[in-house]
Amino acid sequence: MNLQSADELQPFDFVLFGATGDLAMRKLLPALYFRHCEGQLPEHGRIFGVARSDLGTEEFLQRMEQEARPHINEKEFQEDHWRMFLSRITYLKLDATQKNDYRALAAELSGHESRVRVFYLSTAPAIFTAICEGLKDSGLITPASRVAVEKPLGRDWETAEQINDQLANAFKESQIYRIDHYLGKETVQNLLALRFGNVLFEPLWRRERIKDVQITIAENLGVEGRGKFYDQTGALRDMVQNHLLQLLVILAMEPPVSSNPDAVRDEKIKVLRALKPLVGRDALENTVRGQYKAGVYSDGKVPGYLENEDVPDDSLTETFVAIRAEIGSWRWEGVPFYLRTGKRMVDKVTEIVINFRQVPHSIFDTVDGFSTPNQLIIRLQPEESIRLRIYVKAWGDDMNLHPVFLDLDFNDVFKKRQLIAYERLLLDLIRGNPTLFMRRDEVAAAWEWIDPIRQAWQQSPQPPKGYTAGSWGPTASNALISRDNLSWHDED
Amino acid sequence: MNLQSADELQPFDFVLFGATGDLAMRKLLPALYFRHCEGQLPEHGRIFGVARSDLGTEEFLQRMEQEARPHINEKEFQEDHWRMFLSRITYLKLDATQKNDYRALAAELSGHESRVRVFYLSTAPAIFTAICEGLKDSGLITPASRVAVEKPLGRDWETAEQINDQLANAFKESQIYRIDHYLGKETVQNLLALRFGNVLFEPLWRRERIKDVQITIAENLGVEGRGKFYDQTGALRDMVQNHLLQLLVILAMEPPVSSNPDAVRDEKIKVLRALKPLVGRDALENTVRGQYKAGVYSDGKVPGYLENEDVPDDSLTETFVAIRAEIGSWRWEGVPFYLRTGKRMVDKVTEIVINFRQVPHSIFDTVDGFSTPNQLIIRLQPEESIRLRIYVKAWGDDMNLHPVFLDLDFNDVFKKRQLIAYERLLLDLIRGNPTLFMRRDEVAAAWEWIDPIRQAWQQSPQPPKGYTAGSWGPTASNALISRDNLSWHDED
Repeated sequence: MNLQSADELQPFDFVLFGATGDLAMRKLLPALYFRHCEGQLPEHGRIFGVARSDLGTEEFLQRMEQEARPHINEKEFQEDHWRMFLSRITYLKLDATQKNDYRALAAELSGHESRVRVFYLSTAPAIFTAICEGLKDSGLITPASRVAVEKPLGRDWETAEQINDQLANAFKESQIYRIDHYLGKETVQNLLALRFGNVLFEPLWRRERIKDVQITIAENLGVEGRGKFYDQTGALRDMVQNHLLQLLVILAMEPPVSSNPDAVRDEKIKVLRALKPLVGRDALENTVRGQYKAGVYSDGKVPGYLENEDVPDDSLTETFVAIRAEIGSWRWEGVPFYLRTGKRMVDKVTEIVINFRQVPHSIFDTVDGFSTPNQLIIRLQPEESIRLRIYVKAWGDDMNLHPVFLDLDFNDVFKKRQLIAYERLLLDLIRGNPTLFMRRDEVAAAWEWIDPIRQAWQQSPQPPKGYTAGSWGPTASNALISRDNLSWHDED
Repeated sequence: MNLQSADELQPFDFVLFGATGDLAMRKLLPALYFRHCEGQLPEHGRIFGVARSDLGTEEFLQRMEQEARPHINEKEFQEDHWRMFLSRITYLKLDATQKNDYRALAAELSGHESRVRVFYLSTAPAIFTAICEGLKDSGLITPASRVAVEKPLGRDWETAEQINDQLANAFKESQIYRIDHYLGKETVQNLLALRFGNVLFEPLWRRERIKDVQITIAENLGVEGRGKFYDQTGALRDMVQNHLLQLLVILAMEPPVSSNPDAVRDEKIKVLRALKPLVGRDALENTVRGQYKAGVYSDGKVPGYLENEDVPDDSLTETFVAIRAEIGSWRWEGVPFYLRTGKRMVDKVTEIVINFRQVPHSIFDTVDGFSTPNQLIIRLQPEESIRLRIYVKAWGDDMNLHPVFLDLDFNDVFKKRQLIAYERLLLDLIRGNPTLFMRRDEVAAAWEWIDPIRQAWQQSPQPPKGYTAGSWGPTASNALISRDNLSWHDED
């Protein structure tokens, strides 16, 4: 993980499939622009935008002006850098299923076979096969080539294996970079730094000291405009199988031998495999699925999920999931990990709450609010912060314990622009550092744990529980956690 | 340690010997005034100022206007409260050695035998015996009486035992309150709260996790005006035997069974007895004594210790002490505790620094300033604060660890006036809570450890090392700690 400056980064060709798409315009192209500004793209690095639309490069660049540039903060926009960045870009019309269309791309890449060559598939998974075959048959896959694919990688274990088989037909596993953009977030990487860069936390990081762990990814938006895609997916596939499990795994893993990519990923997969299976009745008892109904936010009424035009009236797709998971290991036996995600919840917030146990024996008579034990609260959204809840003696003439927070606001500390997750990931992709990408066996193991939950739901006569938009989800979610005499950490 | 409001506090008679003295005017009377303002002195609580000066009550109150009132912050001064507070006070002329002089006091106290009666001896220890005998012979010591004495309690184990014997002739041990005002400081009490009110610290609080502990009480003042007293005392008796050892003991003690006074003091004395003796050569090798020479502060030159008029030219009295102490116990074996105190140092600062060990195995290649491990820094002066030094990932595209501080500034949290140490102690004295006072065996055990150090110095041909006023002490102090490949935590 050593710093490689632009000098060390070799010239590369970055081929972006789906270049006219939403993700490319909103995230990927702005992320590349930022890396360009900070001098981390080598001079001869080229970017090829590829999509089906019949555009010239000039027209594509005009689209970028309209669709990508608005996603760059005005303060950080520099006209001259932007011009130079655009000059790296060539647009190529390409229908993935038309073999002939690869000729133009081949002509552009020809003569640069020794360069790092990145194929970024920001497209529907349905055309991954066609692209892989097209690239292979056109002889475009060099030893220095890499392919990056976005989640969702499959709908279950079987379809994920199919996609992975297709990728494997064209690329070696070491060339395949599976992206979960949560892993690019600073705070997620900070979990590694906190746990393994400090001597303070590791002795506490175990069943003897931790009562429960809660991971929440709450969104306040609904599925408007994305109803068709979302109804085929649901929260379990969209959020739990990837983001929530990735957070859980990084929190729970044993210390890796090194920060070597496979050392880290070997530890991660051990956690996935140690997750106690939730099958049949166990799945129904330890999960809650919900679907939002109409509700009111401070800025007005919002419709329920089923009121979306492109959602079937009888849809059983879940927009909320809560899961009580357990990890069978010496470190974690008996510690519940609560995972929760939903659309149309009170707030947009992503946070990890580690609830420590009470002191084994209290020597103090009087305590203020001592029912909440020590807590470590790691926020990823809306701001990235770390809070440690400790008890001190309140000023005054008695020994009253008073809860206070030791706070770390990363904005305060670093006083600079925070990297967006894709900046880190795109650079790692070009550098060839796969630590923050998912290995094939990780994806498979995640689906293996997720699939039985979905199957149990499908076989259950119970529909998802309704919850009001703007709430923290169905009441059953509170019931799930209160069985352990615990409650969700919702606000302070 | 439950809250007792003024209603519950019984009426009391507080007899202050040495009422015209410096400590009474600067600290004790203002502290009683503050407690009065906060409604914690019951209506019928009376205060008797007692001293040799031939004054009437009116004259004494005028002295208080001149000498005590300036020590009350203007912002917190309330004229009407001050008037009411003064109306509690009666002055009595009393020469401790004149039996007849106790009659007036007896007359005042007569008829209030059931009240809590506090005798506070803010006088030279030389007259403790006379006062105790006078009180006893005049029949003034009731079962509800208490006596409070100030440090320094003796000059060594033998003289401390003499004083304690004299006190014991008149009072039961349970009636004797030995004051070390450091124990009244909020942050010192907070050490108990931090250690035993949180589950986070106890697992770390041991040799496996802590590399060394440093306790510093640095003063920037010299001994001007107090040269005669100080030259008979020196830093070892003035600061180490009491304040520094008390801080060490509270840091190092095992969890007490309860906050019951004797439960806490039983644990404290165990630490004093576990201190490895420093005798003869061991004492010389593990201590540094210093004496300040002339030097320069930002506001001008200051003279050296020997240049004081009332200090003999050939004085060997130490104005600086550094000690490397060890505690022989399962918890602390091999962990050095460095104690340091001095006059005319760079700054007025009292702080405890806990240096944790490095992580046993680092998985990260590149680290910023990682040579300093995790630290817990507890400041008592100039402001009371807690800082926890942790490492996080610096924002950016590499895994660089960066040190940050989780901070707690008590002024920010409690946003109210902090109790001065004596307020807490005087109230505990009236309430009869001896937790924060020293038991006889504690004082004896502290001297037992201190005396051999002094003897070793006396037998050594080496005089104290000189150090420049405005420095951190003699260079030998740095050499002492660098033998362990460590260094003093001087600034950030």
